[in-house]
Amino acid sequence: MDDHYHAVIMAGGGGTRLWPLSRRRRPKHLLALFEQETLFQNTVARLQGVFPPERIWVVTVAEQAAALQAQAPAIPRQQYLAEPAPRGTAAVVGLAAVALRHRDPQAVMAVLPSDHFVRHVALFHRLLRAGYLLAEEGFLVTLGITPTYPATGYGYIQRGAPVGTYADLKAYRVKHFKEKPDQPTARRMLAQGGYAWNSGMFVWRADVILEEIARQMPDLAAALEDIAAVWGTPKQEAVLARRWPALRAETVDYGVMEGAQQVAVIPAQGLGWSDVGSWESLFDVLTPDEDGNILRGGEHLSIDAQDNLVFVQNGQQHKLVAVLGVEQIVVVDTEDALLVCSRDQAQRVKEIVRQIEEKGLDAYR
Amino acid sequence: MDDHYHAVIMAGGGGTRLWPLSRRRRPKHLLALFEQETLFQNTVARLQGVFPPERIWVVTVAEQAAALQAQAPAIPRQQYLAEPAPRGTAAVVGLAAVALRHRDPQAVMAVLPSDHFVRHVALFHRLLRAGYLLAEEGFLVTLGITPTYPATGYGYIQRGAPVGTYADLKAYRVKHFKEKPDQPTARRMLAQGGYAWNSGMFVWRADVILEEIARQMPDLAAALEDIAAVWGTPKQEAVLARRWPALRAETVDYGVMEGAQQVAVIPAQGLGWSDVGSWESLFDVLTPDEDGNILRGGEHLSIDAQDNLVFVQNGQQHKLVAVLGVEQIVVVDTEDALLVCSRDQAQRVKEIVRQIEEKGLDAYR
Repeated sequence: MDDHYHAVIMAGGGGTRLWPLSRRRRPKHLLALFEQETLFQNTVARLQGVFPPERIWVVTVAEQAAALQAQAPAIPRQQYLAEPAPRGTAAVVGLAAVALRHRDPQAVMAVLPSDHFVRHVALFHRLLRAGYLLAEEGFLVTLGITPTYPATGYGYIQRGAPVGTYADLKAYRVKHFKEKPDQPTARRMLAQGGYAWNSGMFVWRADVILEEIARQMPDLAAALEDIAAVWGTPKQEAVLARRWPALRAETVDYGVMEGAQQVAVIPAQGLGWSDVGSWESLFDVLTPDEDGNILRGGEHLSIDAQDNLVFVQNGQQHKLVAVLGVEQIVVVDTEDALLVCSRDQAQRVKEIVRQIEEKGLDAYR
Repeated sequence: MDDHYHAVIMAGGGGTRLWPLSRRRRPKHLLALFEQETLFQNTVARLQGVFPPERIWVVTVAEQAAALQAQAPAIPRQQYLAEPAPRGTAAVVGLAAVALRHRDPQAVMAVLPSDHFVRHVALFHRLLRAGYLLAEEGFLVTLGITPTYPATGYGYIQRGAPVGTYADLKAYRVKHFKEKPDQPTARRMLAQGGYAWNSGMFVWRADVILEEIARQMPDLAAALEDIAAVWGTPKQEAVLARRWPALRAETVDYGVMEGAQQVAVIPAQGLGWSDVGSWESLFDVLTPDEDGNILRGGEHLSIDAQDNLVFVQNGQQHKLVAVLGVEQIVVVDTEDALLVCSRDQAQRVKEIVRQIEEKGLDAYR
């Protein structure tokens, strides 16, 4: 990738949507869901093929920084940027833009979640390249995913006029961002065409995104200006610590993208992507056996069981798990908790976490 | 109870129908399913109110004898009769009859499985008393359970002519024993009336049952005669060890009851009885919560979940088990195995055990 191209991994999330595996103190990107390595390590590995470590950045929160550094020691220590407290992706993006612009005023940055799954890495690299090329022209680029089914768990992007072809991929102006739809709306959009899932992956120039923040989020911009003024000096941490906590938490989608002037989408088809946002989403990315079952960890037996997900982890891998006569069930067994839920209700796992909090069962959060 | 009345507990079974809780080396009667005590201890406790320990006997297999003695130390050691190897309930009954007749030629014996559940103990005692009174007249008495639903997991007994009333309970001659029926047959029998479930609990005089064995099972009778000849002498164990292994395994139902001359049934209504023969059967005897869920062991959360059984035992009680959006599911979590099955397939758990054996996963048997 070009010397000005940087990749910024957002790795500060909490996330309980994969409870009981993900926990307050064990967020999703620190889970080894698919292989021996964590989702964060998978994300870094996907980038290391095309970026030198000096152009891979990680934005995280203070309490996760040490764990992340240990998992990806090749990335220089000063490229781990720690928020004093989480304040949403708009602030994350602004902080990263300040740091990158300080290093390289011409920096173009891809902003990438740390906990997504991507099957086809070569296509992912081509998509990134297309994003950088388009971003160099001043666009805020969002990487889209061509829908394969009427998902209700993703936001949608409606495309407008074409703006050209980059790295053999077509780019379009963005007409509308749509929030997660209900099922009929999702089906209608899929039938109508011209929509992409919002992947939460973006590419833009550091100076362009900072200008948009200045235009739309003046409070954040003022804080970032103060921080930028002392960046790289001994005062950096003190100013960050003083300015950050007062910020209003906001996502980059709502705070910046929806009102931005030059927004484009590059839809990717066949990327094999998932945001791994619920147990249900694992059916999109893991290959089931001939009965449609995905059985991970431990010994497994299944009799007349179809389309189930059984996940056994964290010290329970010595177990024999037998499923008999059940369909469309998700089972997740960990050392201190067991989840049994129907597949189509898996997104309601957050209600379990809410009940855990209400009942003060803190050990299980 | 009268001085000649004895109770014989059959406690030699293996049983894997409650896998993964029951195992080859942890048979059902050694499980603490309902309370702190095991089913065997529950069975002993049910009898201790009305029998002195000197008239409670236990027939078991050699490798379980020590565990059972430890659980019911009040029963004199010599009243634990150990089969050298399991040879079916006909042999168990014959051995017990030999031992009892040696002690008391007028002995009347109730033969009781060690792993059943009985809710209404006072009625159970009355039923036993009725059985003894009728047995004294020379009948082989089987204790029946008036069906409450068209169960397919029990054998049925069709009653014939009345033979009288004993302890306020009506007794009838047995017209037919029927094997476990299919669902339509079970429904027909329930609609027709005059059928009782075969509880596997019997009462008879020791001399009468030995005569019937002599008439119908001459091989067993010959072995029992040899054993009886040396019973109470130093040769007892040696003869038992020599004669027992060659016996053909047979149940008392098929080997004796079906062809016997004087057979009666006393049906009991409202006993709250179950043979605890499958996870499904626990729904008959455990009280569910307002959603119809039975949640035992550990911490539990349930959201939109109905009519499930969740059993957490053997070192997993520290767990939080969350069920979400599932119905009619059985979940059993133990230290080394987890079962998730649909309630109406629970009787197929034996197929899991068979697969475990076929795959050589011996640790999980």
